[in-house]
Amino acid sequence: MKRNAMKSPVIIDLKFDQEQVAAALKGAFADREVINLLHPGSRKRDLSGIDYAVVWRPGADLFSRAKDLKVVFSGGAGVDHVLTLPGLPDVPLVRFVDDTLTTRMSEWVVLQCLLHLRQHQAYEAQRQKRVWRELVQPEAKELTVGIMGFGVLGQDAAAKLKTLGFNVIGWSRSRKQVDGFETFDASGLNAFLAKTDILVGLLPLTPDTKGIFNTGLFTRLSRKGPLGAPVFINAGRGGSQVEADIVASINDGTLRGASLDVFETEPLPLESPLWSMDKVVITPHAAAASDVAALFRHVAGQIERLESGKPLEHLVDRSAGY
Amino acid sequence: MKRNAMKSPVIIDLKFDQEQVAAALKGAFADREVINLLHPGSRKRDLSGIDYAVVWRPGADLFSRAKDLKVVFSGGAGVDHVLTLPGLPDVPLVRFVDDTLTTRMSEWVVLQCLLHLRQHQAYEAQRQKRVWRELVQPEAKELTVGIMGFGVLGQDAAAKLKTLGFNVIGWSRSRKQVDGFETFDASGLNAFLAKTDILVGLLPLTPDTKGIFNTGLFTRLSRKGPLGAPVFINAGRGGSQVEADIVASINDGTLRGASLDVFETEPLPLESPLWSMDKVVITPHAAAASDVAALFRHVAGQIERLESGKPLEHLVDRSAGY
Repeated sequence: MKRNAMKSPVIIDLKFDQEQVAAALKGAFADREVINLLHPGSRKRDLSGIDYAVVWRPGADLFSRAKDLKVVFSGGAGVDHVLTLPGLPDVPLVRFVDDTLTTRMSEWVVLQCLLHLRQHQAYEAQRQKRVWRELVQPEAKELTVGIMGFGVLGQDAAAKLKTLGFNVIGWSRSRKQVDGFETFDASGLNAFLAKTDILVGLLPLTPDTKGIFNTGLFTRLSRKGPLGAPVFINAGRGGSQVEADIVASINDGTLRGASLDVFETEPLPLESPLWSMDKVVITPHAAAASDVAALFRHVAGQIERLESGKPLEHLVDRSAGY
Repeated sequence: MKRNAMKSPVIIDLKFDQEQVAAALKGAFADREVINLLHPGSRKRDLSGIDYAVVWRPGADLFSRAKDLKVVFSGGAGVDHVLTLPGLPDVPLVRFVDDTLTTRMSEWVVLQCLLHLRQHQAYEAQRQKRVWRELVQPEAKELTVGIMGFGVLGQDAAAKLKTLGFNVIGWSRSRKQVDGFETFDASGLNAFLAKTDILVGLLPLTPDTKGIFNTGLFTRLSRKGPLGAPVFINAGRGGSQVEADIVASINDGTLRGASLDVFETEPLPLESPLWSMDKVVITPHAAAASDVAALFRHVAGQIERLESGKPLEHLVDRSAGY
């Protein structure tokens, strides 16, 4: 690794799989020093005078040791974990936006929508009982997918769902104008929910969204769709959902099923009743795993922009919380 | 129903769900008589002088009773069942091509490709054991889906898979030139298979395709893909596959998994080992269930073309067998 004494090192403090981090660091940041704080040798390293840190669940003493940071880079698309860090300096905070992450999230969202549309769980149950029976099958165009959180991720998933034939509508706190999609804002939530057969959550976790996916909201979803009851899909943040309400809503038929990649507590506790529900698909916060190599490319690109006098992209709005 | 004595009736002989047929017939063929042969009252009806029949597994005496047919309409996209009917007259045979059928087939194909890509079965097994573990996850662009049978259905699925990020290549007996896709013909089968991580069968059943999906073919698929072994998906015709070979290939690791909508014998016999294989998705020939209302719209549209002097569309090439 060539090192340029004129260029600030980059601090890496990522509680990810360390093999993946090490593999991704090979060849990344070729022109500056990398300080991986998870290396034992970095424990006593003087971090003053360093401009950049890439963080995901960083050590509690990071910001007191690295007093001169100019930019903090989040290791994920969500920044709620970063915003609540004690001592977070008042410097630009950059979220991770990357085609890989967006593409992977859309793969997961489209898979879950199709899986519920095409009654995969019912057919799988039939297979196990050796039952050959064709189920009445609506087509994608007969259902409306409502996406809450209509930013980069939501809009990409929307375009792909539309290609497959679904009707797609979008909701965000402040209304997004997106060609080809009907969109709603905070004041239009009831109208949005009343049209939605499959609800997809891609919301950031903020005080406004905490616990937003609860029985009160589920009962406002459309029950006129051809599947008979709505489906809830969440790949945003677990803190946005009330899991006791999801369990109760599936048990009493308010919801037909669910696909969850995020949970109030992660890993999902062993005692959660969600584990044993055949109408629930569970993935371990794996819908859009950060590709660490892509993260480092993104960070290097933003540093290059900054050092050549261009503005940083993907800045977090701290007052909005995302 | 208005009837026009000048217009030939339409014979309906469809071994489909009769409730669906009856519902779809309401409002269909409004300007001509419909003779549904599955109505007991039609048993002794004189069928001479009638121009049109819409058939799926018709009665053995249909063609001897309806001697003056000018066009036979297949009730499905596949026509192998129709081509082998004793007494099939030498008149134009029209296949069922419809947006609904194409769209439904693509829903199913995309679902199965994503399900194997995103390791749904492994995550489902983990859920049942309450295991929270993220699996190494390749992205769609790291896999190549090879589609055998690159007609209307294959090309529609290809476009949708490409939108989701998969590499897609196409194979057909005589090579199809399709913008944006590498395609192969009979002579290029080995090269096609060597590139294919997920094989999708959408072939018609002909003497050439009978049993084509066998161990010899599976062993020529790519094993360089990130999933470690290839996946076989078939929604064409069951006669194209050798199920004993699918079972053996999954058991010995030649195949990683399979999704099958069609079978050598349908319904799939209770004693088939496929039923108990967790790496196999089974649907009961339901990937692209004919929408009966759409079938009647298609038939009515073709009759209108013919009677106004235009050529019929979607004609079957009997020498090719599809």
